[in-house]
Amino acid sequence: MKKIEAIIRKSEFDETKEALHAIGVTFFSYWDVTGVGNEKVGHVYRGVSYSTSNIQRRYLSIVVTDSFVEKTIEALLKAAYTGEVGDGKIFVSSIEEAYRIRTKEKGAESLK
Amino acid sequence: MKKIEAIIRKSEFDETKEALHAIGVTFFSYWDVTGVGNEKVGHVYRGVSYSTSNIQRRYLSIVVTDSFVEKTIEALLKAAYTGEVGDGKIFVSSIEEAYRIRTKEKGAESLK
Amino acid sequence: MKKIEAIIRKSEFDETKEALHAIGVTFFSYWDVTGVGNEKVGHVYRGVSYSTSNIQRRYLSIVVTDSFVEKTIEALLKAAYTGEVGDGKIFVSSIEEAYRIRTKEKGAESLK
Ligand SMILES: Nc1ncnc2c1ncn2[C@@H]1O[C@H](COP(=O)(O)OP(=O)(O)OP(=O)(O)O)[C@@H](O)[C@H]1O
Ligand SMILES: Nc1ncnc2c1ncn2[C@@H]1O[C@H](COP(=O)(O)OP(=O)(O)OP(=O)(O)O)[C@@H](O)[C@H]1O
Ligand SMILES: Nc1ncnc2c1ncn2[C@@H]1O[C@H](COP(=O)(O)OP(=O)(O)OP(=O)(O)O)[C@@H](O)[C@H]1O
Ligand SMILES: [Mg+2]
Ligand SMILES: [Mg+2]
Ligand SMILES: [Mg+2]
Repeated sequence: MKKIEAIIRKSEFDETKEALHAIGVTFFSYWDVTGVGNEKVGHVYRGVSYSTSNIQRRYLSIVVTDSFVEKTIEALLKAAYTGEVGDGKIFVSSIEEAYRIRTKEKGAESLK
Repeated sequence: MKKIEAIIRKSEFDETKEALHAIGVTFFSYWDVTGVGNEKVGHVYRGVSYSTSNIQRRYLSIVVTDSFVEKTIEALLKAAYTGEVGDGKIFVSSIEEAYRIRTKEKGAESLK
Repeated sequence: MKKIEAIIRKSEFDETKEALHAIGVTFFSYWDVTGVGNEKVGHVYRGVSYSTSNIQRRYLSIVVTDSFVEKTIEALLKAAYTGEVGDGKIFVSSIEEAYRIRTKEKGAESLK
């Protein structure tokens, strides 16, 4: 099982949620965060240096079975994309165990 | 060391906090999140299909030494349980290093 | 790649942000959380037992390449420190993959 964390523009949230649902990822958690950043040298778009400091972003935390990782990332990369600097990041890490509290199911079963 | 993340009903928070304290887990962090979900086929309770879409949940993040993992999960599974759909999830992952900022202690020492 | 999570006093946030920038860590996410804690026996400072229960804290999530881990932790340990009980914690875990959504870059490239 993997945890996929995506920090995206709030404006892209609805499209991202729909893209996740379309591939069968119907459960996740989200909350709003502040993104801190200094534009680095080279982060120039169409000749203008954009600042993305202290921007409100949405943090999505999605735990999926291994077979869903690739399509989840593809869906996020497409749906959260605008092409302007500041579209966000995706981070993937390992989840060792998962439980559904209601049924006490463990592992992949708990994510179905 | 492990990180135990629990996404629970806000209504079960006080009971869950007490259950954690009772087993000696006295430190953790929490924040409120939104849970997104589409009820899947089969998620029917007493003949009624409940929707748990866009529900406010509480996210608990608890870092413990390995010897506390099992009892922490048991306490969460019991205290956050109501038996109705939507009781929440528990996710377990690895923490490689931990520090107490005041003392600069590392590892298990920093969690005592 | 590693994820460094720091739960610090809100009063130390500006100094911590500056310390991170000074070592070249210019991107991270943060949000406010509640810290739950019972002062344990021995957590006594200058003869007084301080309670840090239900305190507002700031949660920083910083993903860095391996070469940045040590200096990031050093910067956090120094900048978030006051010496009074309740300065906070740092947790380090593994990130298996990272993506910059705008460019689709992966791995260390996505963090530059
Ligand atoms: N290394 C990181 N660790 C934690 N959060 C990060 C990190 N990098 C970016 N973020 C979060 O993602 C948000 C968006 O980042 P952003 O898309 O600007 O990344 P970028 O690498 O600067 O890409 P771009 O060149 O397109 O601007 C930030 O505001 C911050 O909340
Ligand atoms: N795979 C997941 N990744 C991240 N967060 C999740 C995931 N699954 C559930 N959550 C979070 O947990 C909350 C509660 O989930 P819920 O208890 O409804 O799970 P469930 O599998 O549908 O179980 P039930 O059948 O009892 O409803 C969701 O609203 C969401 O915030
Ligand atoms: N094991 C933990 N898991 C998750 N969050 C924690 C944990 N320990 C502490 N925290 C978070 O860090 C905050 C600050 O913790 P604190 O600095 O009081 O740790 P401490 O070990 O009691 O150190 P001190 O003796 O200096 O008070 C807590 O309010 C909580 O939000
Ligand atoms: Mg940027
Ligand atoms: Mg449900
Ligand atoms: Mg304390």
